[in-house]
Amino acid sequence: MTSRPRIDLNSDLGESFGRWELGDDEAVLGLVTSANIACGFHAGDPAGLLRTCEQAAARGVVVGAQVAYRDLAGFGRRFMDVEPAELTAEVVYQIGALQGMCAAAGTVVRYVKPHGALYNAVVHHESQAAAVVEAVRRYDPTLALLGLPGSVLLELAADAGLRTVTEAFADRGYTPEGTLVARSQPGALLHDPQEVAERIVRLVTEGKVTAVDGTDIEMAADSVCVHGDTPGAVAIATAVREALASAGVELAPFIP
Amino acid sequence: MTSRPRIDLNSDLGESFGRWELGDDEAVLGLVTSANIACGFHAGDPAGLLRTCEQAAARGVVVGAQVAYRDLAGFGRRFMDVEPAELTAEVVYQIGALQGMCAAAGTVVRYVKPHGALYNAVVHHESQAAAVVEAVRRYDPTLALLGLPGSVLLELAADAGLRTVTEAFADRGYTPEGTLVARSQPGALLHDPQEVAERIVRLVTEGKVTAVDGTDIEMAADSVCVHGDTPGAVAIATAVREALASAGVELAPFIP
Amino acid sequence: MTSRPRIDLNSDLGESFGRWELGDDEAVLGLVTSANIACGFHAGDPAGLLRTCEQAAARGVVVGAQVAYRDLAGFGRRFMDVEPAELTAEVVYQIGALQGMCAAAGTVVRYVKPHGALYNAVVHHESQAAAVVEAVRRYDPTLALLGLPGSVLLELAADAGLRTVTEAFADRGYTPEGTLVARSQPGALLHDPQEVAERIVRLVTEGKVTAVDGTDIEMAADSVCVHGDTPGAVAIATAVREALASAGVELAPFIP
Amino acid sequence: MTSRPRIDLNSDLGESFGRWELGDDEAVLGLVTSANIACGFHAGDPAGLLRTCEQAAARGVVVGAQVAYRDLAGFGRRFMDVEPAELTAEVVYQIGALQGMCAAAGTVVRYVKPHGALYNAVVHHESQAAAVVEAVRRYDPTLALLGLPGSVLLELAADAGLRTVTEAFADRGYTPEGTLVARSQPGALLHDPQEVAERIVRLVTEGKVTAVDGTDIEMAADSVCVHGDTPGAVAIATAVREALASAGVELAPFIP
Repeated sequence: MTSRPRIDLNSDLGESFGRWELGDDEAVLGLVTSANIACGFHAGDPAGLLRTCEQAAARGVVVGAQVAYRDLAGFGRRFMDVEPAELTAEVVYQIGALQGMCAAAGTVVRYVKPHGALYNAVVHHESQAAAVVEAVRRYDPTLALLGLPGSVLLELAADAGLRTVTEAFADRGYTPEGTLVARSQPGALLHDPQEVAERIVRLVTEGKVTAVDGTDIEMAADSVCVHGDTPGAVAIATAVREALASAGVELAPFIP
Repeated sequence: MTSRPRIDLNSDLGESFGRWELGDDEAVLGLVTSANIACGFHAGDPAGLLRTCEQAAARGVVVGAQVAYRDLAGFGRRFMDVEPAELTAEVVYQIGALQGMCAAAGTVVRYVKPHGALYNAVVHHESQAAAVVEAVRRYDPTLALLGLPGSVLLELAADAGLRTVTEAFADRGYTPEGTLVARSQPGALLHDPQEVAERIVRLVTEGKVTAVDGTDIEMAADSVCVHGDTPGAVAIATAVREALASAGVELAPFIP
Repeated sequence: MTSRPRIDLNSDLGESFGRWELGDDEAVLGLVTSANIACGFHAGDPAGLLRTCEQAAARGVVVGAQVAYRDLAGFGRRFMDVEPAELTAEVVYQIGALQGMCAAAGTVVRYVKPHGALYNAVVHHESQAAAVVEAVRRYDPTLALLGLPGSVLLELAADAGLRTVTEAFADRGYTPEGTLVARSQPGALLHDPQEVAERIVRLVTEGKVTAVDGTDIEMAADSVCVHGDTPGAVAIATAVREALASAGVELAPFIP
Repeated sequence: MTSRPRIDLNSDLGESFGRWELGDDEAVLGLVTSANIACGFHAGDPAGLLRTCEQAAARGVVVGAQVAYRDLAGFGRRFMDVEPAELTAEVVYQIGALQGMCAAAGTVVRYVKPHGALYNAVVHHESQAAAVVEAVRRYDPTLALLGLPGSVLLELAADAGLRTVTEAFADRGYTPEGTLVARSQPGALLHDPQEVAERIVRLVTEGKVTAVDGTDIEMAADSVCVHGDTPGAVAIATAVREALASAGVELAPFIP
């Protein structure tokens, strides 16, 4: 008897800031099993973060800390050459702050996912990746780290004895080498909910995805990242969720 | 057999910010029993906060979260008319962030003390005081609240079942009514370490302090606040500590 | 021969911040004659401000500096007890920064309008009103100040020899005393574009407006403030503009 | 008849922030002929900046805008991968803001000098250098740009028809190739006021400086940068100034 295939869906949440609203957290929390909630450095004011943590707690969605560079004006999307010791402290600060919101909301932070330019940097930037790992190790070594398969971040995390979780992106194109197509290139973003949904079902059930050149590549992922900051993104997430259910795939958080 | 009198000494720490240094945390941590460490909203960058938390842990000094309005440019000294729900979330965020630093440093946040304009506001501002109490209650109701005797903050905290701790100020003058002399008035600040030290010994051993008009007033306090952000302030703190020891007063944190 | 009645329409613009978009500046710039552009303290990142200044310049809309408390997290809507000397410097800084954007865009700042909580404070707060007046006087005494009729701000500005400009609010209810109905009260906000348009035509042509209790009050204003941060607000502004044109009222900036 | 040799001395000023004081602006303004005043992005609160501008105006010291990345926590010392269009807008904003302070203080911004990590980046980073040049060109093409000899910044500025001004560093060691010795290497910083003073006299009168390996290198500079943020730095600046006067060198701003 084979076990039923299962996958986690994660999404970025809590990315409003004061008067400025971004994304529909309520809608997305009805679709995903894990919520990467901003921590105030690239987005997220405390009152909004508390609300999102409360909503996640009410729906039983697992919470992760979406840590970032300290750059509200740039939404954490600009690489910053932060010293490792500073970055470690900044990541600890952010996890702690979100854990505070979670405590007040009756839930807990279970994993950490870097955001934006930090996410991209720790794919290859050794000292920054090590700084993030060090932050998690020092704050709470039972937290998991969610990141790109093959990234330096996950390698160093595994070396440090941390639990690592890999993700694929629902609405992004892949090169034949299995890396993401750069946003400036054709095929970087997929817009058709049905096409995206079918790709993800195949990824989960067959371990394969079609690259931008039409070839098949092997891919394994513990979680699929769906976006929720536009109406189109919510439609894609909905289609993915429904297609996975139709295909008999169990949706479940990677952290039980 | 009577028990030996005892008192706690607290001071504001972690108030540097990046390139800007303020106070001599190492020196002050050798003098006090409780450290009110900034949380990043009025002062304190993560790397500096982590260092101060590590130093406090190394010396066994109890750590409290010095929560403030979100106002780096004003050092938290400007009243802000923050909505209660926002203030509650901002206080939770700050406690959580400092608890993160403490976790990485091998210690824990044990109490909360409002800073600057927020400290002054919650003496009488009911909804802001209630918002701070609500934050502590929701984050962790075993944390104590340190504040001014007779303040609305401590009244509401006691009503909510929180532990309250009162403080007197070593280097500030008092009115005959037992309130602080406004900083703009003569006698607001005491500068002579010996005079300050004698006042504090009398406060602890007799429960009395001489007001600015020369009359004696009754005063009880669980802790005495000493400052550490100027060389003169460190000298005062040193004199207070030595005078208390000479008078047979035990220095001990209010939280064992 | 009587002159044709004329009025200015002003609106708040440039209130996005980095990733977070707010309002439809392009649409509103097609409707108003004066643009109160944010200066970065409550909203407005430099790249967005430059774009809005360029659009205003392209359409010949007069630019004013919408100065505010330094409070991005609160969108400048929380009163801050800022010292007058600090507030003067903060206002000068903001006007200068926006004038920088205007210089790069080929236009100039012609007036100053306080935003949010600062707008409300300077209606009655003497020292803060004086601080704003002092900032304009020191930066450039040929700039006009736009504010509430009867406010301390405009009184002090007139005393200082500055040009003052009064405004009415298109979508707000008025008390029989001519003050704004508090946002928490019924009748504070008007939502029907046609009703709002008729009120404004009457205000401009008859100098009267119907208060929340049904009585008529006298009101004179050099400019009418319309909002542009929601689809409904743009519809109201459009209706006001069209109704004024139909009534033969000339739309023209208060600064030629 | 030969003309008397002349040189400008510049220093970074206005680098306090609110409660945090850095440097002795009054003392340094008595020593230099050009003041690079911070603009609020890496340091400088408006009230402090206004004060420094007033002091510079009172002493007749020429004012330049010390523009930086938007990074108070990192004091502008961390490289940020800012898009050129954003960087242009950020630089315009900063120059305008400082020009506002100058207008209120009765002086004007005459030149622009990048700070910290931006200073280092524009030595070689083409698109960021071009973005800074574009900002100056669009804001006011009569402003000069102060930077490192041979930098991409000054090359692009000259190509754009802007006035360029080169500087040498009083207290830094040079490699035989004429670049600065990295701060992590021996010989990076010079501490002896007399030695520094003699180097600068030789640089100005002979056009030569001794490199870290003992060899002589040719060097030309329109200005010499002295630091003022430590007591030792003020001593060095004082020694340089006195030695130049003794050697018959005229101290004069590069902008008359």
